[in-house]
Amino acid sequence: MGLEGLQLLAKMREKYGLSIITEVRDYSHIEEVIEYSDVVQVGAKAMYDQGILRRCGKANKPILIKRGFGTTLQEFAQAAEFVLSGGNENVILCERGIRTFEFNTRFTLDLCGVAWLKDKTNLPIVLDPSHALGARYGIADLSRACVAMGIDGLLIETHPDPSVAKSDAAQQLDFKMFEEMNASLKAVANAVGRVMI
Amino acid sequence: MGLEGLQLLAKMREKYGLSIITEVRDYSHIEEVIEYSDVVQVGAKAMYDQGILRRCGKANKPILIKRGFGTTLQEFAQAAEFVLSGGNENVILCERGIRTFEFNTRFTLDLCGVAWLKDKTNLPIVLDPSHALGARYGIADLSRACVAMGIDGLLIETHPDPSVAKSDAAQQLDFKMFEEMNASLKAVANAVGRVMI
Amino acid sequence: MGLEGLQLLAKMREKYGLSIITEVRDYSHIEEVIEYSDVVQVGAKAMYDQGILRRCGKANKPILIKRGFGTTLQEFAQAAEFVLSGGNENVILCERGIRTFEFNTRFTLDLCGVAWLKDKTNLPIVLDPSHALGARYGIADLSRACVAMGIDGLLIETHPDPSVAKSDAAQQLDFKMFEEMNASLKAVANAVGRVMI
Amino acid sequence: MGLEGLQLLAKMREKYGLSIITEVRDYSHIEEVIEYSDVVQVGAKAMYDQGILRRCGKANKPILIKRGFGTTLQEFAQAAEFVLSGGNENVILCERGIRTFEFNTRFTLDLCGVAWLKDKTNLPIVLDPSHALGARYGIADLSRACVAMGIDGLLIETHPDPSVAKSDAAQQLDFKMFEEMNASLKAVANAVGRVMI
Repeated sequence: MGLEGLQLLAKMREKYGLSIITEVRDYSHIEEVIEYSDVVQVGAKAMYDQGILRRCGKANKPILIKRGFGTTLQEFAQAAEFVLSGGNENVILCERGIRTFEFNTRFTLDLCGVAWLKDKTNLPIVLDPSHALGARYGIADLSRACVAMGIDGLLIETHPDPSVAKSDAAQQLDFKMFEEMNASLKAVANAVGRVMI
Repeated sequence: MGLEGLQLLAKMREKYGLSIITEVRDYSHIEEVIEYSDVVQVGAKAMYDQGILRRCGKANKPILIKRGFGTTLQEFAQAAEFVLSGGNENVILCERGIRTFEFNTRFTLDLCGVAWLKDKTNLPIVLDPSHALGARYGIADLSRACVAMGIDGLLIETHPDPSVAKSDAAQQLDFKMFEEMNASLKAVANAVGRVMI
Repeated sequence: MGLEGLQLLAKMREKYGLSIITEVRDYSHIEEVIEYSDVVQVGAKAMYDQGILRRCGKANKPILIKRGFGTTLQEFAQAAEFVLSGGNENVILCERGIRTFEFNTRFTLDLCGVAWLKDKTNLPIVLDPSHALGARYGIADLSRACVAMGIDGLLIETHPDPSVAKSDAAQQLDFKMFEEMNASLKAVANAVGRVMI
Repeated sequence: MGLEGLQLLAKMREKYGLSIITEVRDYSHIEEVIEYSDVVQVGAKAMYDQGILRRCGKANKPILIKRGFGTTLQEFAQAAEFVLSGGNENVILCERGIRTFEFNTRFTLDLCGVAWLKDKTNLPIVLDPSHALGARYGIADLSRACVAMGIDGLLIETHPDPSVAKSDAAQQLDFKMFEEMNASLKAVANAVGRVMI
């Protein structure tokens, strides 16, 4: 995202009180992303970039690292460790699906991997079922599964009218679907002793 | 399992009122398995065997088909279809983890695949988190995730003393762990409008 | 293949002096396949079947085992070991492509795996580039690569008129393509100190 | 590689007449790499980085792009296209093994993928069997297979005394192994109508 886009997002934050999470796509615009975001996202394709990770280790913003689709859990934990060892203690792990032989779904959301991450690290974990499945039909079920695992956050794509969405239209929920899902997520969160905010 | 083993299981059923689900490993002992089981399990390594699937299509027992670890969802659904088209309407699908590049966990439980199966078939779905993870630590979390997806059953390995279990010791829950987990599964099931029996 | 088909193949052998290699698809027809074939092929989907492997261990015919598309090298070697330990010393290993995330080609021919098998076993190795690639365009190049590895045989699909082939038409070579390729294979074989027969 | 290392390499070039190929690990040192190298290598972990690819499109040096271990052939070709469309016509593709379920070898060298790339692009193709296999034993066989496919170059790791190599020791050939292999590669190259230089 260019500087103009980031400044526009910052205005939205002021006006509506939303927080901004934006992705660093490459090193060339990292300073702007750190300046204008509330949370800096290191994308799945950038998470091996030591220049980006090193700079994130010195940033005063939380860093959300997305696991690469071909990345082992070990490498994923190492990327987080790299940022932590730079001095930034606010690192969030995000599982968004890995590449497997199965092509009827876009990716394979790795919840065994989430169990491993919960066992081996103490970092907050966020899941992204929308990108993993790549289709609307199972997002609500998958989101409930994620919440039942006791994770710390979800990225869900939603749009007032998915049919005109400019990217990833097939996986967007409309607002009605989103609200229905949200109600059920609260119930599941309570069942596992957590509170949704 | 040999004939003697099957007859022993049948005695246990009589004595304790348990139901028996046993695996057909190859065609040579299929008649005995059908005779002595309440549910016939077609294992992950046998699910392409047309001789076995054809015989199961004529059996008067429910058939649980485990997805092969290298099997696409399409092929899995076709195996079920093959049994159904033989005349047996009681087919249960079981996802037990697929092989991926990730080796920190034994397999990768494919919940995107479960979402696909729920959307594309009307068959009951059972999950096997014990085999997928291959370790004790995350079974409870994964089981809660499975139940939150609205599936129809779980295979969980448990043992009075896992340290002396003759197979798959690392993934066995002891009875206390199992009971604690069970209580939480009921809460999750209720949260998604289902009742555990 | 049914009994009639096998008997027809046997007549062709008599008439034209060809040898027959046929696949056991399931245990129910194994006796006929052993009787009528010169080489018994255990297919990729049947290679975990202990009933079939056990019977092959007692057969007086060479056994060609195809690696499953989701099968590790270790499991593949174990299947061979199982037949050998039954008393049949004529076991041939066949690599025919594994399932990976890459779907622009049908499978991924695993030549690193072939290097491993050559290093760890003393069994003859045959490769099947036609099934791995699933398309005509690269068969000649892949076949030359296989021969250059010093392997012991190739399975190549060919047809007088691929456009009317009843199965796998896209990967069939016509006779002209086959002959051209064959000439180049001889040159490669010579270059690595082997002779093509 | 830091600036000092690059300057040292440049001195070696002057002294011994060698050419230098060095990897861009991240955007922060790309100018130095372009300045001091004869060929700029974009590593497997950096090949999605649009900042790096864009800069390479404006460079006056050949660019060797390594395929990511989780990268589809389509994405790989797109990365090359991105550099080409920036105005740099010297792009070389390098296959170095993909991640699959098979862990007895470090990666799986994808020669079906190489067949696809040869068919769909006109770019030179280089292979890296050392990294793919991760072990010394099969490098010579794999290299012969690569050359037999009619590819344009090989990356082979060699070291005067592999036992003291500082990185990837297990896959280094010593000079004697390298020379023996080299002689056989020439014979294979000739067999497929190419000349090794």
